[in-house]
Amino acid sequence: MTTSEPLVANLEVGGRAPPLVQQVKDLFVLNPHAELTVSPSLSVCRWSAPLLQRLERSMSSVTIPPPACMLRPLETPMRYLFGPGPSNVPPRILAAGSRPIIGHMHPEMYEVMNDIKRGIQYAFQTENNVTIAMSGSGHAAMECAVFNTVEPGESVLIGVNGIWGERVAEIAERMGANVHRMVKTPGGYFTNKEIEKAMEKHKPVLFFLTHGESSAGLCHPVDGIGDICRKHNCLFLVDTVASLGAAPIFMDKQNIDILYTGSQKALNAPPGTAPISFNERACHKMFNRKTKPISYLFDMTYLSNYWGCDGKPARTYHHTGPVSGFFALRESLAILAERVKGPFATFFLVI
Amino acid sequence: MTTSEPLVANLEVGGRAPPLVQQVKDLFVLNPHAELTVSPSLSVCRWSAPLLQRLERSMSSVTIPPPACMLRPLETPMRYLFGPGPSNVPPRILAAGSRPIIGHMHPEMYEVMNDIKRGIQYAFQTENNVTIAMSGSGHAAMECAVFNTVEPGESVLIGVNGIWGERVAEIAERMGANVHRMVKTPGGYFTNKEIEKAMEKHKPVLFFLTHGESSAGLCHPVDGIGDICRKHNCLFLVDTVASLGAAPIFMDKQNIDILYTGSQKALNAPPGTAPISFNERACHKMFNRKTKPISYLFDMTYLSNYWGCDGKPARTYHHTGPVSGFFALRESLAILAERVKGPFATFFLVI
Repeated sequence: MTTSEPLVANLEVGGRAPPLVQQVKDLFVLNPHAELTVSPSLSVCRWSAPLLQRLERSMSSVTIPPPACMLRPLETPMRYLFGPGPSNVPPRILAAGSRPIIGHMHPEMYEVMNDIKRGIQYAFQTENNVTIAMSGSGHAAMECAVFNTVEPGESVLIGVNGIWGERVAEIAERMGANVHRMVKTPGGYFTNKEIEKAMEKHKPVLFFLTHGESSAGLCHPVDGIGDICRKHNCLFLVDTVASLGAAPIFMDKQNIDILYTGSQKALNAPPGTAPISFNERACHKMFNRKTKPISYLFDMTYLSNYWGCDGKPARTYHHTGPVSGFFALRESLAILAERVKGPFATFFLVI
Repeated sequence: MTTSEPLVANLEVGGRAPPLVQQVKDLFVLNPHAELTVSPSLSVCRWSAPLLQRLERSMSSVTIPPPACMLRPLETPMRYLFGPGPSNVPPRILAAGSRPIIGHMHPEMYEVMNDIKRGIQYAFQTENNVTIAMSGSGHAAMECAVFNTVEPGESVLIGVNGIWGERVAEIAERMGANVHRMVKTPGGYFTNKEIEKAMEKHKPVLFFLTHGESSAGLCHPVDGIGDICRKHNCLFLVDTVASLGAAPIFMDKQNIDILYTGSQKALNAPPGTAPISFNERACHKMFNRKTKPISYLFDMTYLSNYWGCDGKPARTYHHTGPVSGFFALRESLAILAERVKGPFATFFLVI
């Protein structure tokens, strides 16, 4: 018997494949607590022996040898991070991120995710139900926001006064939007009057602005812009990757329709997760679209179910969230919830 | 002065904005070691005072109170993970993931990434230069593979015998490919003859197959399929999320053009990173396309630069990689490099 025959073949011949397939499907799709309910007939020991007999090609036939660089221990420096990249992560958050892993669909994981949702609602100052953390960097949240709220051919207006606006413009162009840029030199800012004028001209479905323009050192005011967007039936999308937790932002009061941030700046968690929130106006637009979002991974229909935001009794599998990253993010949001009793901005992010 | 004026305004008035903007741009774009080279004139203290005077609205005006659930400590269980989701992570890998963070563009981080690249080359048994880890789950690698190697309107052929083929089909449909499914009941497998017949009929630019079909319990043979793909000028894309590290795979010998996996199964790292490799045939196709990939985040032009695979002297900023996740992934690949001296498959993943 050679490796060109599938390992499961003899199980089919033996008439055991249909119940196996069904049991494995049940185990995988319907029951995330597999390790608690595996029956003796599905144990690894019972299965592994006949399967292993079929492996004729082992790693003893490798042609690429183990790389020498991987045989020395991992060494990384201790460093004070005052730059625009990740910030130092406190030991408490590092410890949370190094807890033993659990399944991404275990009930205890859902509890952690529920806590994260509440923590983000507090950090964003919003009551939005559709509030989650993306399994990715701030750029993942950026693409998620645009992919879900804009359909190909629709007009979007983007404030470009540093690199972030330019990136969102590129993302929107790639997914087929009709992109209009408002351009200022890096560090320049847009008056509400200029924004309204451009909105009247281009009639966008989405207006993007960066709150903390880290590439230029600008914290842009957002008061009043949400009202202008409502008047013109446009969604207001704000990037607070570099500012959330450092400069005040009030998603609900400021009528921001979609807000996102990253974990690794003022929240002091490791990079790799990105809080995002959609209000009812944004949800109405994105859940009533004619076309599917271009990305399956960033489709908010699935992500809002995974985060328990769609009111359905069951959360079904979509992707495997970064379990350790969520533990760490929860801890960083807990610190925010515990410590901020008086004025928020005891420090301010310069870049 | 109100919050409707930008915080940087007085700096412009004072004539200091242009040098600031330039310095911050240099700091951010060109010099990842910002914390070591910040000049006194750019210190936080000097800047924060005038900026803070402009913040009239602080978090003392919050309407959303700190959530009670976040004021209790994080508790997660110890659990043996024998299910199809994440596997248990050894203490050594958890410890690596909890090391103090460094910048995603620090030279020490690039060294860790270089090590990861070599480790993946060994795990995949490939000498492919364009070998990286995605900043995301296996689904991120899945989308990256399809988005980069297929252009809208091109024909793709997908083996569907469980949920993974169906997902890739949906991803390819969303980005505008002309999708042809080869369908079997879950657990069913495709003979090389069937594959060649379908290839002759549909003339795809890409053929997708899952090596470890975790939703049905099948480890699919791949020998000979790469040769068929070459004969028909088609790229061979293989998903080994559930099998890599557990069942032998030989990317170069088996003529697999694009291969990806996840960190959280047999590699025993936390979920959140996803190794992926492209051979020269795949690179030729994806770096000579007429249209840009639909996703900026998953654009291999930028990602291969970020991972130092494009031969350019400088790696420029694209996104912030999951630093802790990369530390952990490096450690898991190091364990693989250290331990596998004899036959590879001392255990086998059943589901």
